[in-house]
Amino acid sequence: MTRYYEDLECGVVHETGTYTIRKDEIISFAEQFDPQPFHIDEEAAEESMFGGLVASGLHTLCLTVRFFTTEFVRGDDDIALIGGGGMDKLRFHEPVRPRDTLQFRVKISKKSPSESRSDRGHVYFRHSATRDDTEVLSFISHSIANRTPTEEE
Amino acid sequence: MTRYYEDLECGVVHETGTYTIRKDEIISFAEQFDPQPFHIDEEAAEESMFGGLVASGLHTLCLTVRFFTTEFVRGDDDIALIGGGGMDKLRFHEPVRPRDTLQFRVKISKKSPSESRSDRGHVYFRHSATRDDTEVLSFISHSIANRTPTEEE
Repeated sequence: MTRYYEDLECGVVHETGTYTIRKDEIISFAEQFDPQPFHIDEEAAEESMFGGLVASGLHTLCLTVRFFTTEFVRGDDDIALIGGGGMDKLRFHEPVRPRDTLQFRVKISKKSPSESRSDRGHVYFRHSATRDDTEVLSFISHSIANRTPTEEE
Repeated sequence: MTRYYEDLECGVVHETGTYTIRKDEIISFAEQFDPQPFHIDEEAAEESMFGGLVASGLHTLCLTVRFFTTEFVRGDDDIALIGGGGMDKLRFHEPVRPRDTLQFRVKISKKSPSESRSDRGHVYFRHSATRDDTEVLSFISHSIANRTPTEEE
């Protein structure tokens, strides 16, 4: 059963999964998208302000979105999200290191009907990744959702 | 020669490269990090509001950061950026489709000395990806940069 704009309740928090990040994937992600020495080179990372290899913040962001998509948007009941508008307040609170286990969560934080399209609405989510109850990353995202189809459709 | 906080001039725009995105990499990126039908399934994408396969906004973001890192931060003269604090105002202005050629740019938009560390400063960048002079993505990022070492060090 598809969930629509009307079915999303503000304030509700959804747990979307946990994931243990590996050193090899930290390095291979960063080699592709964020090749800073402290993400790809263990020796250089030890000399950096992190004192060791850390994941690119982009990598943690991508993992957070993956669990949001697979476990929440496309879970047992699909949510009719038809596109994303943007992200705000993305913060890398703490470094993420090899073998860290991250918990992902999303809260429906705000909704508003579309002014231009009566069949759509705006939904704002607050996402977070935590390790041992400490937030390592958080951000706000904005999506467009379909509204519940009316009888005559 | 390393470039420090003092060497970064506000308002200056740097071209960091161009890239033509392929359908297979759009699909493989999204299968890993953003498996929505309109990013991974051509038939479903035709039925979506995009009318065809589009890249995950995260994918365009990651490519923009890659060119920033390889061509600007770690170009001929390394910039002493020692970590990233976050991103704001990430907007997906236009869909990105297979075979689109994107131009990447970064502007140094703001700087301020660190209040807690005399050897560091905050630098804010405005990034963009454009196609045929139309912005498809933009965002602000915040990094920490080392200041020019003083004589006695």
